[in-house]
Amino acid sequence: MPYQVNLGLQVIPITDPKDAYSIIDDCIKIIQSSKLAYQVTPFETVIEGGYDEIMMLIKDIYEFSITKTKEVVINIRLHSKADQDVIALDKIQKFNE
Amino acid sequence: MPYQVNLGLQVIPITDPKDAYSIIDDCIKIIQSSKLAYQVTPFETVIEGGYDEIMMLIKDIYEFSITKTKEVVINIRLHSKADQDVIALDKIQKFNE
Amino acid sequence: MPYQVNLGLQVIPITDPKDAYSIIDDCIKIIQSSKLAYQVTPFETVIEGGYDEIMMLIKDIYEFSITKTKEVVINIRLHSKADQDVIALDKIQKFNE
Amino acid sequence: MPYQVNLGLQVIPITDPKDAYSIIDDCIKIIQSSKLAYQVTPFETVIEGGYDEIMMLIKDIYEFSITKTKEVVINIRLHSKADQDVIALDKIQKFNE
Repeated sequence: MPYQVNLGLQVIPITDPKDAYSIIDDCIKIIQSSKLAYQVTPFETVIEGGYDEIMMLIKDIYEFSITKTKEVVINIRLHSKADQDVIALDKIQKFNE
Repeated sequence: MPYQVNLGLQVIPITDPKDAYSIIDDCIKIIQSSKLAYQVTPFETVIEGGYDEIMMLIKDIYEFSITKTKEVVINIRLHSKADQDVIALDKIQKFNE
Repeated sequence: MPYQVNLGLQVIPITDPKDAYSIIDDCIKIIQSSKLAYQVTPFETVIEGGYDEIMMLIKDIYEFSITKTKEVVINIRLHSKADQDVIALDKIQKFNE
Repeated sequence: MPYQVNLGLQVIPITDPKDAYSIIDDCIKIIQSSKLAYQVTPFETVIEGGYDEIMMLIKDIYEFSITKTKEVVINIRLHSKADQDVIALDKIQKFNE
């Protein structure tokens, strides 16, 4: 898959809210420490890159999360096009000027 | 429900991509014409306000969408707290400075 | 909107798992006490009916949930067609025979 | 990650509905041809197994889908516990008796 995809990642630890937010913050830090472009939005962090490199990052986040909470729900949305990159900025810039 | 909630709205028309994007743009315009605070993100538009007023807006968008495409999937994420407003900016600003 | 829609409802209380499951069970009981057709699946309960009647049920569930947990995420997926009912069974029966 | 997870997979081809359903059916066939336990539900197919083996299956489905449609949205929900398997049947059987 040569083209860049967009992926929205929402990590929901099933635990007390104060612990949940700390885990979510640490997951975002893992994304920030990768070389991938990302944007933190209210429900998810949107990551831009190749399918395989994003999925390796998600595995890291998943494995981290489950060491910090007894139970977790992780929601992933993938957006991909057959013949071109998906660029997050292209989808939103006209609405946020 | 007196407290303000956060709601992420993703409209996916099941139709040719060029028609799909035009419908999605028009749905965002309906949100923009409401008085509610919103943020367009790559996968969804996040709306902030009272539960009932947001749900009335969603009904408008749903009814509009189904006049423009034979079939639609609408994904909604609601985030609510028992004793305080949910403020989208509070959730993301520390990561986007 | 005269046609019947399909709606998937996932309630995620942000609280300790043992409390979370009890709240989820009570939310499903609210669905069961309605007159609407439903199916409990591993991630969500799928409800079949008119848009307005399902949305009234969701409001009941939302208002209930927020009395039982400090914080909740509710995920909703709506599937609707412009000119016919969406029938859950039609979508799955050929795969589950 | 030794424990078994639950994963809900929804493939939404952005194309004409009649093409979309044919692609979705073929994706379900790919799941059926794996050795993993699965259940087709109205909005998603729920798969049970190890994280890595499910993610390899999802890569196959993603790569297949994008050869059949110009654009696709794939939604994934992962449910995992730190110290035990997640068993889909345990979550739903009491409601479907």
